[in-house]
Amino acid sequence: MEPYELTATEASALIAARELSCEELARSTVARIRARDPDVRAWSWYDEDMIIRNARELDKCPPRSPLHGLTFGVKDVIDTADMPTQHNSPIHVNHQPGQDAACVAVVRHSGSLIVGKTDTVEFASGGRRAVTRNPHNPAHSPGGSSSGSGAAVGDKQVQLAFGTQTGGSHIRPAAFNGIYGIKPTHGIVSREGAKMYSHTLDTIGWYGRCVEDLQLVGRAFQLPADDRPAPTGAKGLRIGLCRTPVWSAADAYARAALMEAARRLDAAGAIVEELTLPASFDGMDAAQQTVMRGEGRAAFLPAYLGSHHLLHEDFREMVENSRRITPAQLVQAYDLAAACRRAFDGLFGDTLDAVLTPASPGEAPEGLQDTGNPAFNSMWTLLHVPCVGMPVGKSARDLPLGIQLVGPRFGDTRLLDIARACAPAIHEAGPLARIDAEVAVAA
Amino acid sequence: MEPYELTATEASALIAARELSCEELARSTVARIRARDPDVRAWSWYDEDMIIRNARELDKCPPRSPLHGLTFGVKDVIDTADMPTQHNSPIHVNHQPGQDAACVAVVRHSGSLIVGKTDTVEFASGGRRAVTRNPHNPAHSPGGSSSGSGAAVGDKQVQLAFGTQTGGSHIRPAAFNGIYGIKPTHGIVSREGAKMYSHTLDTIGWYGRCVEDLQLVGRAFQLPADDRPAPTGAKGLRIGLCRTPVWSAADAYARAALMEAARRLDAAGAIVEELTLPASFDGMDAAQQTVMRGEGRAAFLPAYLGSHHLLHEDFREMVENSRRITPAQLVQAYDLAAACRRAFDGLFGDTLDAVLTPASPGEAPEGLQDTGNPAFNSMWTLLHVPCVGMPVGKSARDLPLGIQLVGPRFGDTRLLDIARACAPAIHEAGPLARIDAEVAVAA
Repeated sequence: MEPYELTATEASALIAARELSCEELARSTVARIRARDPDVRAWSWYDEDMIIRNARELDKCPPRSPLHGLTFGVKDVIDTADMPTQHNSPIHVNHQPGQDAACVAVVRHSGSLIVGKTDTVEFASGGRRAVTRNPHNPAHSPGGSSSGSGAAVGDKQVQLAFGTQTGGSHIRPAAFNGIYGIKPTHGIVSREGAKMYSHTLDTIGWYGRCVEDLQLVGRAFQLPADDRPAPTGAKGLRIGLCRTPVWSAADAYARAALMEAARRLDAAGAIVEELTLPASFDGMDAAQQTVMRGEGRAAFLPAYLGSHHLLHEDFREMVENSRRITPAQLVQAYDLAAACRRAFDGLFGDTLDAVLTPASPGEAPEGLQDTGNPAFNSMWTLLHVPCVGMPVGKSARDLPLGIQLVGPRFGDTRLLDIARACAPAIHEAGPLARIDAEVAVAA
Repeated sequence: MEPYELTATEASALIAARELSCEELARSTVARIRARDPDVRAWSWYDEDMIIRNARELDKCPPRSPLHGLTFGVKDVIDTADMPTQHNSPIHVNHQPGQDAACVAVVRHSGSLIVGKTDTVEFASGGRRAVTRNPHNPAHSPGGSSSGSGAAVGDKQVQLAFGTQTGGSHIRPAAFNGIYGIKPTHGIVSREGAKMYSHTLDTIGWYGRCVEDLQLVGRAFQLPADDRPAPTGAKGLRIGLCRTPVWSAADAYARAALMEAARRLDAAGAIVEELTLPASFDGMDAAQQTVMRGEGRAAFLPAYLGSHHLLHEDFREMVENSRRITPAQLVQAYDLAAACRRAFDGLFGDTLDAVLTPASPGEAPEGLQDTGNPAFNSMWTLLHVPCVGMPVGKSARDLPLGIQLVGPRFGDTRLLDIARACAPAIHEAGPLARIDAEVAVAA
């Protein structure tokens, strides 16, 4: 097994035991990127010499934390002090920030090896798409806007990577690339130094190759502890199967992945029951759009004024408020979201441990222009709740299919514990075994 | 009259008519700073040559907007591409950001002359105080954390300046320095590139020497229009006199300023009636503390990990959660705030135009360590509502006293229109005429 193939958790143990050096892992990573990235194109910037040099520096001191030496990709809307941050925008070509974004600083101080910047949809929002291809099938999108981060982890070019989610930019690419991802509770990780789109929605997340990898990073961010013992398996967990108000957007594969995950959890002893959200949640998808585009006006005003000709039409329309979003609509969206947050949290407690729900409307779209529909993500982003994306299987075209588990606000640590306990059941046949879409037709 | 004495509005008209050059205004500004700043110490950084050079550049092109050539100070927690941003922190000595914060970019693209960086309480939060003195009485604080911005405008060293408010950091210094300030609706102006403390609370505001000056800047930020005709005077305006749940914190001067403003508005024909907030608002002050300190944990984690020895104890305690804020308390604070926001907005409409309420618990404290109590600001910050600070008079020690007008979320434009209509009444005897604290005793 080559070092690049190790999960973060596996590599962490070897580095701590001095059985693997940071440089060995870095060299294996560089070789993997060289071999694969001409096809995948996950990276907007990296420097092989810098990777090796920084790894050698890390080898000079004892491990600072379990993240020491682990390879981390950073979505190119997140500032890095030693690498450009270009936002896939002509305005920011070769732009060099003055310091690390908060999330980068935390993992860098914890000893992570920042490998490079991953390609993104312009400003993690609209406009230009990433050039990244799906590593499982290059004719398809890796999803967006965290395209490069999802593909880099999915292709084992790095162990960990940061993404961001404002609509469905983090969890959807997790599903499309066959990897694990967490979009934590809004605000639990500082988003300072990541390009702002919507202050109510923007959330930093990270990808890994297993739930343990996500937990490793969660500890670096000091996610609030949960004093309940972690479940050791799916048995007895109360899982709410939630089709959401946008169920009609789910294709046969999305339905098959959800039902297959539910079936496997049920077989492992979990108590899986249908969860229908109150009618007020029907307005959340539209509310998320209102908040995102309404807040995007202020976010892109500086570029609109200063670099008008270089700003993609999508952003000019947002600043010009082409959809005529009124302050009253914005207030209504905020108030609906607040009421639904409270109602959603209220579902948990004695009768529910986690919600099982689709991560995307189906497999990754063909071509690179369509990065997929965020319908199954937007509501959760606006609810501010933690979501853990998990792979379930693969489609006939070799494209990964995923689901997500969702918990109440600040229940991140518990949700990760639950996801870890459920993962073996969901992967009874391996995380990327073939899923039969016919399952959904019957469901 | 020297150019530096002109309000932004007056100078804007002269610059548009080519009767005043940007260079003339800049030279007058530099002379004023030279004469006064050794005593006031409002600035953490400025460069006389850069000011003059940039003003000359502005004179080479026709005015880009009504802000063209106007002098702007920037609180030193807000990034500037051509000046250091030091946060009054030893971690950031001479730190040079890679780009302008969003708010700076907007006024710079509008042609404002960025004069320099104004001193601040460390990270606009705690720890080290600014060295700035109150320009009206140097034995007293100018307030904080927007200490330098408040003092620089109050001392006529600049016409306009940015501050920030997380608790009471913007409106309180407005009162202490005898100037006007707006803390707009949360999120209506992008806070990208300003140091993050609390994502729910941090709000960019600006100072000016009259309401018209605040409106000038508001137009650059494209605050949502209000289609009602602007009132031409106080007559008929329905003003709710709100003592707030923290009224006991108001000293005789705070009470006098509020009652005097109410009396003058009443005399001018406004309908001033007592407004008692619902009992649920009693918890807002504590909720603001919970949100601020709870969110501060994530904000200061990077510095805690990377520069532990240079980080003031206040921030280390916040990251270590010394007050033991639980996720449940944080959720409760969020939900209370959401409910109160909705309730507060509901007060407006046919029966209320604006709320009149204290801006501070009294005059500026003596010495520089105590920057004043945010009790009369915290609730409004958490409510996300626009607040306009206005001077009412001066105490026996020559210290300014102010009040604030408050409106519903996104009612910024209307609130500024109302403030402008009320200003002549409130200033019947000049904005800084002596106030008799005995008025309050009677009230």
